Amino acid sequence: MFETNLTVAGKVVTEIVRHTFPNGDRKSSFRLMARERRFNKEAQDWVDGDRVFVQVNCWRRLAEGVAASLVKGDNVVVTGRFFIREYSTENGERRSSAEIDAQALGPDLGWCTVVVERPSWSPSALSTGMPAEEVVAAA
Amino acid sequence: MFETNLTVAGKVVTEIVRHTFPNGDRKSSFRLMARERRFNKEAQDWVDGDRVFVQVNCWRRLAEGVAASLVKGDNVVVTGRFFIREYSTENGERRSSAEIDAQALGPDLGWCTVVVERPSWSPSALSTGMPAEEVVAAA
Amino acid sequence: MFETNLTVAGKVVTEIVRHTFPNGDRKSSFRLMARERRFNKEAQDWVDGDRVFVQVNCWRRLAEGVAASLVKGDNVVVTGRFFIREYSTENGERRSSAEIDAQALGPDLGWCTVVVERPSWSPSALSTGMPAEEVVAAA
Amino acid sequence: MFETNLTVAGKVVTEIVRHTFPNGDRKSSFRLMARERRFNKEAQDWVDGDRVFVQVNCWRRLAEGVAASLVKGDNVVVTGRFFIREYSTENGERRSSAEIDAQALGPDLGWCTVVVERPSWSPSALSTGMPAEEVVAAA
Repeated sequence: MFETNLTVAGKVVTEIVRHTFPNGDRKSSFRLMARERRFNKEAQDWVDGDRVFVQVNCWRRLAEGVAASLVKGDNVVVTGRFFIREYSTENGERRSSAEIDAQALGPDLGWCTVVVERPSWSPSALSTGMPAEEVVAAA
Repeated sequence: MFETNLTVAGKVVTEIVRHTFPNGDRKSSFRLMARERRFNKEAQDWVDGDRVFVQVNCWRRLAEGVAASLVKGDNVVVTGRFFIREYSTENGERRSSAEIDAQALGPDLGWCTVVVERPSWSPSALSTGMPAEEVVAAA
Repeated sequence: MFETNLTVAGKVVTEIVRHTFPNGDRKSSFRLMARERRFNKEAQDWVDGDRVFVQVNCWRRLAEGVAASLVKGDNVVVTGRFFIREYSTENGERRSSAEIDAQALGPDLGWCTVVVERPSWSPSALSTGMPAEEVVAAA
Repeated sequence: MFETNLTVAGKVVTEIVRHTFPNGDRKSSFRLMARERRFNKEAQDWVDGDRVFVQVNCWRRLAEGVAASLVKGDNVVVTGRFFIREYSTENGERRSSAEIDAQALGPDLGWCTVVVERPSWSPSALSTGMPAEEVVAAA
């Protein structure tokens, strides 16, 4: 069978924890919460619906980009491989955790603006780098 | 039937075009390209695979955040409502365009770091705002 | 924020439980398991990877179609609204369950063939109903 | 970059075309259409929204299961790898086609019931095979 993919848009609800493994692998992880908003006909108003909680794991360059850019409270969009991690507590109880190994992740620009620090090796470094507004104005 | 959702991680391959409608609605749009990388056994190397091209439409606050933050060449992740727009050319030929009305979109932190400019109304403005590294160092 | 969508291809690992609510609403539910297969370079063989477990809830006509068609052990594909249901055990412990409210679901034809019983109101009832092989042969 | 995944629930709008390649590879393909339904406030009624058209390609066992089970007009759910195929017409014009290489696909049980023909090698063949209704009745 195949990998299961999941995309979630939500809020970073924990600090971002950064870890470097003995072999040099880097990981950044945090907990993400998404909350539905539903229109309630009786109340004629929007109310909170179900929630999604997932642990988000980022590796390598993404781990660094996340640790250097995001803080608790930021709204992000993430897509990646979804799985249920099963583990035992100290008391021997079996628990499970919904997790994503992120393939791509960024701050949701519906909630903020950002200044992108583009690495010099990036193709976009060759762009004029003009923000969209000026580009349109110049056209 | 239901909406069809699509998530794409790829590169902004056009300038970002910003438009304000007479009624005040704002829209930012651009073309996004994703390219698969596949391992070729004979060549024992990674080669380009199939591509995805989609027109990405952003509205309201997301339109502003995109126009103020991104430029051609940036790598982004977007999720939203997928549809095929059908239209006729000036010659009367029928054509179609794969499009996404974005629900959430951001620069992919696997390719860059960003400085997030958090609006004052944002809950994350209440955060200490310490980047992850310092948080871990302080723990 | 928006609904979170999830698609899973996996195996029905419990009996299908059917329930009719006092108001006439019908629900069929079961537990679905997906298991990744990964190629292990050292062993030069495919091994089991991570797993996904989700509770799948089907409503209305889909509840009936599922109850009338599927059994434990069948391979299916399901897409729908993903959420984490939070609840307390009798001992007061807080637990959570990964769930999908299914929008569309069917047996995976990579694992079986099916005889479709098309309702008379269905547009496909107007089709010739010829299986694909004969259609091609007749072309 | 990564594969782009797409899940679509919609209707088979062409005959299913089956093809066997000289090397024995089997393929079944058809065109799938999904149509949104939106609630129009002014009309106080549901109206048609945007549409999705994709070419669906099925390979190996899935190609056989699809050809043996489905006909034009059936409602299905499919998930797989999404890509844009680019090609030139006889006149030299460049065109593109939205396509899915299916990973899992089945008839949508919200629109029909099915009799599953389980292969003898399938684990589900070991199941009691009792439909859900009787299982519940016996409980």
